[in-house]
Amino acid sequence: MKGKGIGEVSVKYFTFAEPPEELVLTSGQKLGPITLAYEAYGELNQKKDNAILILHALSGDAHAAGFHKDDRKPGWWDMMIGPGKAFDTDKYFVICSNILGGCKGSTGPSSINPQTDKPYGLDFPIITIADMVNAQKKLIDSFRIKKLLSVVGGSMGGMQVLQWFKSYSNNICSAIPIATALKHSPQQIAFDEVGRQAVMADPDWQKGDYYGRAKPERGLAVARMMGHITYMSDASMEKKFSRRMKNKNYSYTFKTDFEVEGYLQYKGDSFVKRFDPNSYLYITKAMDYFDLSGEKLVTEGDESETRFMVIGFKSDWLYPIYQSREIVNQLKYRRVGVTYCEIPSTYGHDAFLLEVREQTHLIKHFLSSVYKDKKNEK
Amino acid sequence: MKGKGIGEVSVKYFTFAEPPEELVLTSGQKLGPITLAYEAYGELNQKKDNAILILHALSGDAHAAGFHKDDRKPGWWDMMIGPGKAFDTDKYFVICSNILGGCKGSTGPSSINPQTDKPYGLDFPIITIADMVNAQKKLIDSFRIKKLLSVVGGSMGGMQVLQWFKSYSNNICSAIPIATALKHSPQQIAFDEVGRQAVMADPDWQKGDYYGRAKPERGLAVARMMGHITYMSDASMEKKFSRRMKNKNYSYTFKTDFEVEGYLQYKGDSFVKRFDPNSYLYITKAMDYFDLSGEKLVTEGDESETRFMVIGFKSDWLYPIYQSREIVNQLKYRRVGVTYCEIPSTYGHDAFLLEVREQTHLIKHFLSSVYKDKKNEK
Repeated sequence: MKGKGIGEVSVKYFTFAEPPEELVLTSGQKLGPITLAYEAYGELNQKKDNAILILHALSGDAHAAGFHKDDRKPGWWDMMIGPGKAFDTDKYFVICSNILGGCKGSTGPSSINPQTDKPYGLDFPIITIADMVNAQKKLIDSFRIKKLLSVVGGSMGGMQVLQWFKSYSNNICSAIPIATALKHSPQQIAFDEVGRQAVMADPDWQKGDYYGRAKPERGLAVARMMGHITYMSDASMEKKFSRRMKNKNYSYTFKTDFEVEGYLQYKGDSFVKRFDPNSYLYITKAMDYFDLSGEKLVTEGDESETRFMVIGFKSDWLYPIYQSREIVNQLKYRRVGVTYCEIPSTYGHDAFLLEVREQTHLIKHFLSSVYKDKKNEK
Repeated sequence: MKGKGIGEVSVKYFTFAEPPEELVLTSGQKLGPITLAYEAYGELNQKKDNAILILHALSGDAHAAGFHKDDRKPGWWDMMIGPGKAFDTDKYFVICSNILGGCKGSTGPSSINPQTDKPYGLDFPIITIADMVNAQKKLIDSFRIKKLLSVVGGSMGGMQVLQWFKSYSNNICSAIPIATALKHSPQQIAFDEVGRQAVMADPDWQKGDYYGRAKPERGLAVARMMGHITYMSDASMEKKFSRRMKNKNYSYTFKTDFEVEGYLQYKGDSFVKRFDPNSYLYITKAMDYFDLSGEKLVTEGDESETRFMVIGFKSDWLYPIYQSREIVNQLKYRRVGVTYCEIPSTYGHDAFLLEVREQTHLIKHFLSSVYKDKKNEK
């Protein structure tokens, strides 16, 4: 927890163009050229064996730590990344990659379609978690990193971690999936689908062709408001809001009476300023399609040397701990080395962003141990 | 569970007009005249001591049992009401009253405002659970029933039960609140608020002035889809849908891939055909305002003879069992006779509509006991 921050940082961009400048997606469609926005902190050592890849959740971006010029808001995992922190930038080279399909500098539905010179909109192909990871692999290759010390992420970031293991287990020493699942349950699919329907119900959505016009802001705000309920827990909402009111008495109108209402409206309104509604559709769909359950995570006969630390949070009802345990069970069943940590947090799903102290302790020691073992191997 | 059904029934209407034809609401506003739609099953005996009042949830109506002419769909609690059933119409006179603020024959925002000869819309005053109960009391008075054998209801129906006890404990022998709460938690308020925002975000809502034009159907459908997730449990959704798909392969479009998506869309679409969006706003607001927590349920010093049976369901995460236990604790603390039954159902909040066998067993015996004691008193 000690140590100063990493200071000013800026987003970088990596563009790759497969011959013929395209990536073949899971759907069979082709997409290219592709740009990924990313940030990097610390120094890649000469052996290139100290690199950690951080993967973000639904609404995250490449800006995981430090500060952008003239911006007082730190990156989304700034408490975890920096000198002396969980991801110690004095020791490790930390890369955070924005996802394919996003709207924070990487190629997504709001990007210009080179074939039409207009934003893709719904002409953007449906992408999967595997597609996101395949694009990230190109980024890692561009650094000539053969083996990542670790891949780490919470929520959808954790799905990418699992997919990295599935697709490139020889290229990762360790993996830390946090508050995530091998597959979405019908309840998780249902919440995503309601969010998508809220966006698509907004007349401004215009079948995705709204760029340069009014965005479907109200629909996206409704989706985000609902999302926020699922990110918190009953207990954390009680603690944060209880039934506290904005004014002393009920308004007897449909104006905001309770603080929790105002909070959700604020969260919805601020989200629409920074997020593309079409990206919301594409990313949630990728999460719903993700399925590495059962034998799909580890192919029988594979002898993986990747070491896992799986982290779950007791009050997380969006990604309940039984889903973390399923990951552990599948790994153990296939003789993959795995440590399971269940953190008794009351923050719900948001705990992966908020439980800094516990996660720092766990992750710091795990990474040290993996790094030490890796050095001893040689 | 035995016995034939109660056959064909029809909705009746009770209109009351206080001098000067108005009811003073909790807000201080006046409303009148007021009509309540209701249905009644069985026979009121000469002593008028065998009457049970059934109170419905958010989207319910007066049609609790039997069949309407030329309609194959039974009332919403038909499995529970009829000869030999939990609410045995061979013994009891069962009344189910639609709520004030609703859209199923009772006065609500879609009713004609006598002052303008147009539907109220948002000129309809904000109503509370206490207002609903005060209107129901007039209906019961119209039968010259001095003391109801029981008041019973699930979810918002249970809030009305608690309010009946608070407002008219001398007029009820017993009370059965099911899957309900003394007050909405911030999480419950939050879900309601997102539902309201979904309706109000629909441009067809027109600040509530949409009657005679297009209804804000898409907004209401989104609200209802989200609601349905909260009525089920993670386990019941897994059992009912798992990740079963409509077609063999992913569509790689935003069309419906998973059965759970199609189910929710169907539920949303069918709801908008039978429900008024403004009623949705008014009723959820009444639920959010409801608060009989702490000492508000039972006034100190009151010696109530009302007997309670409180029922909760283990998998209900919308009205978690700790809320049922809070009701029990408050009643016990004030020396009100209460039996608590926790049913290990996996159906979630919907269990109060689906767990027929367990509820029949519990309710039948409880009512018999209350009825016998009442007779012995005399």
